[in-house]
Amino acid sequence: MAKKNGKKAKTVKPLPNPVDLHEARRLEVRSGFRLADIDPDSTPGLPEENGKQLGSELFASRDEELADLQERMYAQARAELPNAPSVLVVLQGMDAAGKGGIVRHVFGSVDPQGLHIASFKKPTEEERKHDFLWRIRKEVPPPGMIGIFDRSHYEDVLVQRVRGMAPPEEIERRYSAIIDFERELVDQGTKVIKIMLHVGRDEQAERLLERLDRPDKHWKYNPGDIDERELWDEYAEAYQIALERTSTPLAPWWCIPANKKWYARLIVKAILLETLRGMHLEWPEATFDPDVERERLANS
Amino acid sequence: MAKKNGKKAKTVKPLPNPVDLHEARRLEVRSGFRLADIDPDSTPGLPEENGKQLGSELFASRDEELADLQERMYAQARAELPNAPSVLVVLQGMDAAGKGGIVRHVFGSVDPQGLHIASFKKPTEEERKHDFLWRIRKEVPPPGMIGIFDRSHYEDVLVQRVRGMAPPEEIERRYSAIIDFERELVDQGTKVIKIMLHVGRDEQAERLLERLDRPDKHWKYNPGDIDERELWDEYAEAYQIALERTSTPLAPWWCIPANKKWYARLIVKAILLETLRGMHLEWPEATFDPDVERERLANS
Repeated sequence: MAKKNGKKAKTVKPLPNPVDLHEARRLEVRSGFRLADIDPDSTPGLPEENGKQLGSELFASRDEELADLQERMYAQARAELPNAPSVLVVLQGMDAAGKGGIVRHVFGSVDPQGLHIASFKKPTEEERKHDFLWRIRKEVPPPGMIGIFDRSHYEDVLVQRVRGMAPPEEIERRYSAIIDFERELVDQGTKVIKIMLHVGRDEQAERLLERLDRPDKHWKYNPGDIDERELWDEYAEAYQIALERTSTPLAPWWCIPANKKWYARLIVKAILLETLRGMHLEWPEATFDPDVERERLANS
Repeated sequence: MAKKNGKKAKTVKPLPNPVDLHEARRLEVRSGFRLADIDPDSTPGLPEENGKQLGSELFASRDEELADLQERMYAQARAELPNAPSVLVVLQGMDAAGKGGIVRHVFGSVDPQGLHIASFKKPTEEERKHDFLWRIRKEVPPPGMIGIFDRSHYEDVLVQRVRGMAPPEEIERRYSAIIDFERELVDQGTKVIKIMLHVGRDEQAERLLERLDRPDKHWKYNPGDIDERELWDEYAEAYQIALERTSTPLAPWWCIPANKKWYARLIVKAILLETLRGMHLEWPEATFDPDVERERLANS
């Protein structure tokens, strides 16, 4: 029986990161962060000129490495290694900020078997009876998986704060509860990446208008979006507070200028790649003797 | 505010199906089907010569249409249309038949938000206490989604039959229970596509050997695979019976020659595309008045 491949593991040569993360690192939320200082039109780390073309080349150039790293992580869980790691990507942003596009385009190049996607809408009656983290805990990514939260527990300090849906002292309690919850995740081996897609007010209007103009986008439009839009400044304040208070070294927030969709997608992919690289993912050791098994196979 | 796009819905021109389904239709399991007659090396519908190259061009050529149809189906559910449809793809086959590759390559071009993937392993203790369909029902795709079962309720008439894990009369009962269950799914708007990846005995040995030879594939190898392999003929018989008895006009089986991975992937994609096309998926009607909303947006 011919061997199709040699005995070497597939190796993927790590390429330089898609963007100069030195520059893009400024997007990580640290003390002194002010949302108002971030220009949603800007593209830190990429030149003004031909940034889009460069970005699109970079975007496509490391799917192979990303797929390889994801598979290593998945393999560790399948091999039942203790403390097999996982990743959780939290996506937040105003309506039409581009969350769905991130899932489709950034995570579209990853094996769908390795993704665990949860979308958090208005809580159901049952969910409202429980602590705000109850429904969140049920969707924490299993070992080996990349979890994606399309909206998240942060809604409970964003819309709920803006709309006064919970008393101030309960909102207050939630910031610490979130920090504790995320520390717990990190302790059990989950890398937490929190992304705020920072879209501008005018750009949002354009995107909503497009949803109204195109019949194939009507389903994405919700009249309630305008009601939220009218509370723009209140949301900006709620985001400022949430990001400031819950961006920790273990579970930092990234505030990504999102008026240019290609830029936001490139940066999220870069952060994901950087995170997976930092996990030093090795293929799990065999739990059997390959020579013995080759013998068994030959005799079967 | 500039309109980026016209008012027309995006339209994707339907292309001819990737393969001549006239030929490939023979792969649908009908009365008189005999598994032993299907050559796992064959590529019905594609020429012997340059079939692989042709196939790979065809494979890549309709991602756009597939994505469009999937989005329409997803949109119908999001718009809360009554009886919004869904699709369930059941994947079965011997170890190393290529199930994982189908998920990665065929469904990798679909928005991951529209996929619901369930992998059925050896039942847990709790699962064993319930009827065999209990754990299956929990993973039925929600409206608008493409569900994928990596192994399925068919394990309960395959490994369980071969290994005598349930009494013969219980196995017997399951064939009818499966037919009833799948009819129920179809009645509530789920298209059911059942795929058996038919790999040959020698090809399986090569693939298992590759898993033993390559450290980056060790995690896919399980010594138990050899034990199952030694029951090859018993499995062939169990598949023959299962396919024969449960291939119904509403929920047919497809028996796909799978020694050539590129061929099996192409055919599964073709069947999926053909199924979605047959559903006549329209964009849902707006539940709001676009003119009123444009006015509200302008004033916001």
